Amino acid sequence: MYSGTNVDKFSFRNDYSESAHPQIIEKILKLAYETNTPYGEDRHSEAAANKIRELCGTPDATVAFTAGGTATNVLAISAFLRNSYEAVICADTGHINVHETGSIEYAGRKAITIPVDASGKLSPEIIEPVFRVFESEHMVVPKLVYISQSTELGTIYSKAEITALSEYCHKNGMGLFVDGARLASALMAPENDVTLKDLGELTDGFYLGGTKNGLLFGEALVLTDPVVADHLRWLIKQRGFMLAKGFVVGAMFEEALESGLYFEMAKYANNCAARIVEAIKQAGFELYCEFQTNQIFVLVPGELGQELSDTYGCFIQARLPDGNWAVRIVTSCATTEDAIADLSEWFIKKACAGIVKNYIGK
Amino acid sequence: MYSGTNVDKFSFRNDYSESAHPQIIEKILKLAYETNTPYGEDRHSEAAANKIRELCGTPDATVAFTAGGTATNVLAISAFLRNSYEAVICADTGHINVHETGSIEYAGRKAITIPVDASGKLSPEIIEPVFRVFESEHMVVPKLVYISQSTELGTIYSKAEITALSEYCHKNGMGLFVDGARLASALMAPENDVTLKDLGELTDGFYLGGTKNGLLFGEALVLTDPVVADHLRWLIKQRGFMLAKGFVVGAMFEEALESGLYFEMAKYANNCAARIVEAIKQAGFELYCEFQTNQIFVLVPGELGQELSDTYGCFIQARLPDGNWAVRIVTSCATTEDAIADLSEWFIKKACAGIVKNYIGK
Amino acid sequence: MYSGTNVDKFSFRNDYSESAHPQIIEKILKLAYETNTPYGEDRHSEAAANKIRELCGTPDATVAFTAGGTATNVLAISAFLRNSYEAVICADTGHINVHETGSIEYAGRKAITIPVDASGKLSPEIIEPVFRVFESEHMVVPKLVYISQSTELGTIYSKAEITALSEYCHKNGMGLFVDGARLASALMAPENDVTLKDLGELTDGFYLGGTKNGLLFGEALVLTDPVVADHLRWLIKQRGFMLAKGFVVGAMFEEALESGLYFEMAKYANNCAARIVEAIKQAGFELYCEFQTNQIFVLVPGELGQELSDTYGCFIQARLPDGNWAVRIVTSCATTEDAIADLSEWFIKKACAGIVKNYIGK
Amino acid sequence: MYSGTNVDKFSFRNDYSESAHPQIIEKILKLAYETNTPYGEDRHSEAAANKIRELCGTPDATVAFTAGGTATNVLAISAFLRNSYEAVICADTGHINVHETGSIEYAGRKAITIPVDASGKLSPEIIEPVFRVFESEHMVVPKLVYISQSTELGTIYSKAEITALSEYCHKNGMGLFVDGARLASALMAPENDVTLKDLGELTDGFYLGGTKNGLLFGEALVLTDPVVADHLRWLIKQRGFMLAKGFVVGAMFEEALESGLYFEMAKYANNCAARIVEAIKQAGFELYCEFQTNQIFVLVPGELGQELSDTYGCFIQARLPDGNWAVRIVTSCATTEDAIADLSEWFIKKACAGIVKNYIGK
Repeated sequence: MYSGTNVDKFSFRNDYSESAHPQIIEKILKLAYETNTPYGEDRHSEAAANKIRELCGTPDATVAFTAGGTATNVLAISAFLRNSYEAVICADTGHINVHETGSIEYAGRKAITIPVDASGKLSPEIIEPVFRVFESEHMVVPKLVYISQSTELGTIYSKAEITALSEYCHKNGMGLFVDGARLASALMAPENDVTLKDLGELTDGFYLGGTKNGLLFGEALVLTDPVVADHLRWLIKQRGFMLAKGFVVGAMFEEALESGLYFEMAKYANNCAARIVEAIKQAGFELYCEFQTNQIFVLVPGELGQELSDTYGCFIQARLPDGNWAVRIVTSCATTEDAIADLSEWFIKKACAGIVKNYIGK
Repeated sequence: MYSGTNVDKFSFRNDYSESAHPQIIEKILKLAYETNTPYGEDRHSEAAANKIRELCGTPDATVAFTAGGTATNVLAISAFLRNSYEAVICADTGHINVHETGSIEYAGRKAITIPVDASGKLSPEIIEPVFRVFESEHMVVPKLVYISQSTELGTIYSKAEITALSEYCHKNGMGLFVDGARLASALMAPENDVTLKDLGELTDGFYLGGTKNGLLFGEALVLTDPVVADHLRWLIKQRGFMLAKGFVVGAMFEEALESGLYFEMAKYANNCAARIVEAIKQAGFELYCEFQTNQIFVLVPGELGQELSDTYGCFIQARLPDGNWAVRIVTSCATTEDAIADLSEWFIKKACAGIVKNYIGK
Repeated sequence: MYSGTNVDKFSFRNDYSESAHPQIIEKILKLAYETNTPYGEDRHSEAAANKIRELCGTPDATVAFTAGGTATNVLAISAFLRNSYEAVICADTGHINVHETGSIEYAGRKAITIPVDASGKLSPEIIEPVFRVFESEHMVVPKLVYISQSTELGTIYSKAEITALSEYCHKNGMGLFVDGARLASALMAPENDVTLKDLGELTDGFYLGGTKNGLLFGEALVLTDPVVADHLRWLIKQRGFMLAKGFVVGAMFEEALESGLYFEMAKYANNCAARIVEAIKQAGFELYCEFQTNQIFVLVPGELGQELSDTYGCFIQARLPDGNWAVRIVTSCATTEDAIADLSEWFIKKACAGIVKNYIGK
Repeated sequence: MYSGTNVDKFSFRNDYSESAHPQIIEKILKLAYETNTPYGEDRHSEAAANKIRELCGTPDATVAFTAGGTATNVLAISAFLRNSYEAVICADTGHINVHETGSIEYAGRKAITIPVDASGKLSPEIIEPVFRVFESEHMVVPKLVYISQSTELGTIYSKAEITALSEYCHKNGMGLFVDGARLASALMAPENDVTLKDLGELTDGFYLGGTKNGLLFGEALVLTDPVVADHLRWLIKQRGFMLAKGFVVGAMFEEALESGLYFEMAKYANNCAARIVEAIKQAGFELYCEFQTNQIFVLVPGELGQELSDTYGCFIQARLPDGNWAVRIVTSCATTEDAIADLSEWFIKKACAGIVKNYIGK
């Protein structure tokens, strides 16, 4: 892949610190010389939507392109929960509960949160006792289950897990929606057994993230149920999410999907992360939760956590009672060889300095 | 300017049918090779904001970059109308009333609409009798006046008109907000006497449109009152308007404003429109309303209106009782010489065919 | 009827200045000695609902009891407009547009207002050109027409007028809802030809007002379409409109409807108003709009308008450009003989003083 | 007190199954013969508000009368949380979280819920770790802590506990609001040491419940901070909570507070509950949580729980893993001697049948 980060700084803060893969920008330049229909009703959006329908095995799905993740979640949940008394069930670590400034509540809907473990995952067993409580007009009506693939902790649901959730939701009159901000990374994970066709078949909606996977911006929302998708363009426009130059997002997805770049970028990011994990393990450090995609959560003593965060811009996920911190390292299609080497070396150096010994208490 | 439209089609539908000026795309390519802080807290956004503050003579203004016009209007009105019983006054032709799918009402606020004439403008005299009605807790409290510069009909407010509105609003406890989706075109209009510094001084907020003036997307919201701007980033995030790669919008404005391209593009579009108006008048056709910026509203007999719309993608603004139609022609920085020539010729041909004679009833 | 107003003051301000008809209060006292199921699921609410279904000829209608008019309008419109992009059409004088502090907008829905004449009425002819404008996702979707019977100006729709509206709405995919805050007065108007059965057949919903017709408080919402009424109790509870002691409202309607008091009270109020109108006409004054129910809008010179308002608590509807004021006089089941005599005498006195001559410009 | 429940049925379902204390209804009858200003701007509301201000030691407090508990909570939280990104902290058992059908979320605000133990109480220690998390624009801003006195489990906060919460809230820029649906019962609890003056001094708002304490309906909201109370009447009207005949609620509170009936009714209900608890304990049954007011939560084996619920209309609070159920018994000012005797006898009989032995596992 291209060498994205500049030499001055090696950032592992997230996967959206560089504009876009050059191939994508090249495509946008071409659009400066052709006239397109506005508001997403153009040939590129149509081509990209068709490609997505083909990949997902859902010839009749509604596909809409939006600018970012929070907007896409708000839009999808607005589409699923038409009635004001309907609610969405999510993990307490779910992005819509934690990091979207109450956008679901601003849209007038209740998010029913359920505590989850370090896997960040929901299951029918976890949902059932909560779901059963909602039985009268004094309470909201759960109508949707929201999960993320990969999760906020970088883990992925297996096909068996998603199948179980799908069956549970449908048996109980609920839809299943997958936040796919990092879906590409999940799809390309070595341990992954969930295909886009599986998502098309098992869920009622999901999105293919672009912002966190090498596009300039943009997400592709897929709704498989026409009832859910009814008047979707009205919902989009009303929420301020309709882009006048919607063809730009359509064209980026068209380019990325038809050339295969979309999947290559995610694979590259995952590989970068895997190499860093290798270095971390060699240095003797442990992980906070299972590593599967392009997000690593490493356990380091508090003082090292601060240094790691200061040096590489990393997000501190948790400060544990035992003094260790869980620090997040994220790779992307713009991660450079130099950056990987620099970070790996950092861990080795700390190991040599004897820090690991103390921290794991041996 | 660059030749934007392809040879297959001459579109005068709007000013957002091509991606962006190549110089802007060039800038975005550079961002692929440097790491930036996400969510708009980056060096480019800061530089662009400072440039805007300097141009507007408002060193302490809050500047925020958003993705599109509806989002910016919703955000600004959310910032001005913190209390649910507060309302915004606008022209009945105002974009927020007509073409944003009830986004203001979705945000829980009432838009008080006032009928206006073909100038599309509000004035203290027009507002006063409406404003006076709202006097008890059984009615909303008008707190903001919303106008557009240029207006939906391509006309511009003079400095005297904006000053009068400003004084009226402030005397009556209201703010004044200017929708600047086409502000660049207004600023570069030959008859314009309103500067950015005037807007900074006379209004409480406005935005510099990018989407309709050669940027890939993006608007720059300027709020001069710190009370209105309080916790603005929370409002942005909650509404799904915060872009992960906010630095892209910041960098586009930085490039366009520091190089002067922002103003050149608008001037070019205005000039293209002026040349078309000249051809229209030579051909003997009349205008529906005053021509001042990059939007032309021409009067043609109904059958010609349909042909004009079919051939050049033009929007039909009104079908008048006398059988004539008001058809909108919009130019942009991507309008080509060929397109201008083609459209001008169309009007001349129709004139030669004797159509004008009949239509103006002579 | 009982003599409601005290001797100290003759108020014609409205029809809700006294608590309730004694027969109603007697009924409430009985409820102190019996146990009832809360939240409106009691025997009295059931009996009242059944009586209403019988009177309206709608055996399957959903009937719900609420505390007041604004709440009932909000509830009904929430039930009709499930989707956020759906809108309600109303007269610009409509109560939901003018005197409910933007409650519809607070509920996230747009009210499309249409200017009406002094009859205060909508018709298919008036609605059609407005309705036709809403044709794309950039605009809301009109889904409901809201009218009041009697109107804000005391006038009533004829059966032919409601039939025309009903046909127009249903042909265009809209529902028809009737605000019946003063429905009893309309039903008992001498010129009325609209029965409850007509409303049950022609409209999709309406309410029988109690607050303005001798009950302590309370309205009875009738929804004839089960799709509109789906999960109504959830909508009621969520908006804070569910009364713990719902049986109180149910029992008041049960008492009023089964004894016929509901209709007698309205007839009495109408008769009182008719007698005052007679005095007004004898005195030579003119009316602002047609008199049909329990609301009179009399035209008086400005200085007399102020006196009338000060003396009898009357609401000033309009200050006309010719110097005359339209002042509202409202009667109720608590209007006394003394009050009628006092007010009638006031008009006669003014007539003798020669004021009328000047005012009608003869 | 008066004997409220009829002989056919002894209900312990709740404290709002009878209309109102006869003395209250007598007062309402008087209002049928006098004219009052509508919308709560009448002499009775003013007198009641003044009495409340005097009792609470808050001469400048804003007092508003509403129809029910959910409405009052929604109104208060709307007044405290003016900005859409502000949130309220509550116990996960809090009424606003559990039994108001997402009314807070419908109003666009997030309720941050914290798990609590069987006391149902929040404390600074419990709130602090949750509060600390909200530190950026990606999260809401906690602005209010909501508690109930008595709690959902019938327990009461001590003066020391409320003082600690008050200091914590104010130190952290939050308000403290007390849901007083059963405040009268809490005030009259033998163990209570919190006066109305304490609430006036320590909290930023609370309400005195009427619906659950012998009034026909109605609550009295007290807001001590004028900033919070700004434009309160607009908030009330917009939400559909303004009663046309507001004077009825004002007059009921006036009567109940000036005669002392308000406190006597609560004391009577508490005494009834205490006598039942005595019988329960004599019979050898245990309580689920501490008994302090007019709500009893008794532990019985599952099969007995069903019988208790069927016979006396009791609410089942919890079905515990050990097979026992926590069943709620509520008394009111309408609870009769016969009812107490009947229920007490029920427990004694079950004890004689040897059921208790098994259930407590001896």
